[in-house]
Amino acid sequence: MSDTQERVVVTEVGMRDGLQSVARTMSTEFKRRWIDAAYAAGVRQMEVASFVPAKLLPQMADADDVIAHALTYDDLIVTALVPNLKGAQRALEAGVQRIVAPISVSAAHSLANVRKTPAEMIDAFATIRELIDNASNAGVRRVELIAGLSTVFGCTLQGAVPYADIAAIARAAVQAGADVIALGDTTGEATPRQVGEIIELVREVAGDRLRSLHFHDTRGLGLANTLIALQHGIREFDASLAGLGGCPHAPGATGNVNTEDLVFMLDSMGYDTGIDLAGLLASRAVLADALPGEPLYGYLARAGLPKQFGAARQGFASRQPSSEPQVLQ
Amino acid sequence: MSDTQERVVVTEVGMRDGLQSVARTMSTEFKRRWIDAAYAAGVRQMEVASFVPAKLLPQMADADDVIAHALTYDDLIVTALVPNLKGAQRALEAGVQRIVAPISVSAAHSLANVRKTPAEMIDAFATIRELIDNASNAGVRRVELIAGLSTVFGCTLQGAVPYADIAAIARAAVQAGADVIALGDTTGEATPRQVGEIIELVREVAGDRLRSLHFHDTRGLGLANTLIALQHGIREFDASLAGLGGCPHAPGATGNVNTEDLVFMLDSMGYDTGIDLAGLLASRAVLADALPGEPLYGYLARAGLPKQFGAARQGFASRQPSSEPQVLQ
Repeated sequence: MSDTQERVVVTEVGMRDGLQSVARTMSTEFKRRWIDAAYAAGVRQMEVASFVPAKLLPQMADADDVIAHALTYDDLIVTALVPNLKGAQRALEAGVQRIVAPISVSAAHSLANVRKTPAEMIDAFATIRELIDNASNAGVRRVELIAGLSTVFGCTLQGAVPYADIAAIARAAVQAGADVIALGDTTGEATPRQVGEIIELVREVAGDRLRSLHFHDTRGLGLANTLIALQHGIREFDASLAGLGGCPHAPGATGNVNTEDLVFMLDSMGYDTGIDLAGLLASRAVLADALPGEPLYGYLARAGLPKQFGAARQGFASRQPSSEPQVLQ
Repeated sequence: MSDTQERVVVTEVGMRDGLQSVARTMSTEFKRRWIDAAYAAGVRQMEVASFVPAKLLPQMADADDVIAHALTYDDLIVTALVPNLKGAQRALEAGVQRIVAPISVSAAHSLANVRKTPAEMIDAFATIRELIDNASNAGVRRVELIAGLSTVFGCTLQGAVPYADIAAIARAAVQAGADVIALGDTTGEATPRQVGEIIELVREVAGDRLRSLHFHDTRGLGLANTLIALQHGIREFDASLAGLGGCPHAPGATGNVNTEDLVFMLDSMGYDTGIDLAGLLASRAVLADALPGEPLYGYLARAGLPKQFGAARQGFASRQPSSEPQVLQ
């Protein structure tokens, strides 16, 4: 493999996907501290809030303030999730660089989650596209619009989602103006071979617009699935610090892929994430302070970095002195 | 990938590697029940005991009885681990089909674990080879001798192990008569790219004798590493039910790859393990009964099988009815 130091973007989504599944609401001050700590560790892309009614998700009521803080970092790409046109309007006004609008490929999940069919979500997506284009024409910096296809790898309500449905909805999202197609394993059912198949399937209809993957670690395959996605050319992944997260409408779903463990794997393989593992591990302290008693997950946090991990990252050639083992002379 | 239903052998090593790191001793009766349950679930290869002095590992004092029970199953391949010639003699007398003799590629780990250098272990390995050959010449069914190379992917005591050392010791083990070379991530430091590199490195000197991999899940990469090993042609893996295991001489090391999670991944990818997941999950009850309070790990045990998992296993072509999503018509 010759892609040493190839760039991989890790998007921290814990402030959105993680916190929305934690019953308690993290204070705005702690969210600011989390953003600061993640930025200090080198994270340059974060999904920091969603614009949903506060009565549905009180955890996200401070979206405007959180985004305003994130935007104080010039080189931080700030993303918000929006379920509808009204949310998109608020996100535009808040000044985010990227808007994710989820579209479930499972009708059952879509109805449970947003009370709309996938087709209705595609229609809503098109109106968001129009809103962004109008703002752009009026001089607002162009916001990137991401179709976050969810339940792509299975749905706890309807079971396996036919590949034809996934392809059709991906195609419809592109036609409706998605700049980026992201694939989400909302329910933690993705498996490695399937991940490769679906990436190729969606790439056929979405081409280079297929850009990012969002895995949950429900069945322990989050990193194995990431590995397959890397092999299929994906270079952008969502993850949550300490594995926070889940989907309230997908029973049994557990947290996102753990950011620290993901960065460790990428680092060990020679990819450049720009993220400092020690800093990332240290940033868990913000969560421990903000959410005492909340379980924080992560293998690396428990086991620590292997001895000489820095050396091991330098690659085969440089890390292997030609020392014949003296014991065998 | 066209290897649907290709066979992958999963060796249950929990009765040996798992139990040796559990402080309490499991009774012989419970070990028998475990073997029965694993066999009933379809496991056909088990490492059931080690022949070490009972004062060092009282958990293994009943090795003879446990092996005798395992051998009541005609088509179960029974393996014992032996640290030395005396252990090999006992294993031969017990009638196992396979003997694993560990050889650490890290001198520091080797000295801490068996108080011998790797070179001394190679010498000891050669005497085991001779013992088996003599027994075979005397009419005893030929026992397969496995060199279990340990700390191959890193050592908590000495750090990274130079690739040249790994290759030299693998070569020496082949020259000393190993039928099989197995690679062990004793300390849970293996990372995906490294796994691929080391498999190719060892295959250069060991050829087809390189057969099996033994991962721990210390840093969450056990299944990702397995995936890479599969891609590099390995079709035999060790695992422990409920992720029991670890190495008392490798601080920070945690359990083996979880058998249920491994079989789930393999199953999802279309490999034939011959193991029934529901039966395997049910067999955890033996551990819960035998070791109350002992933590049992596993993603699948917590999350359960995905809906329609059986259907998803049938492969892309058969599981994808050509249903265009009506919502988009």
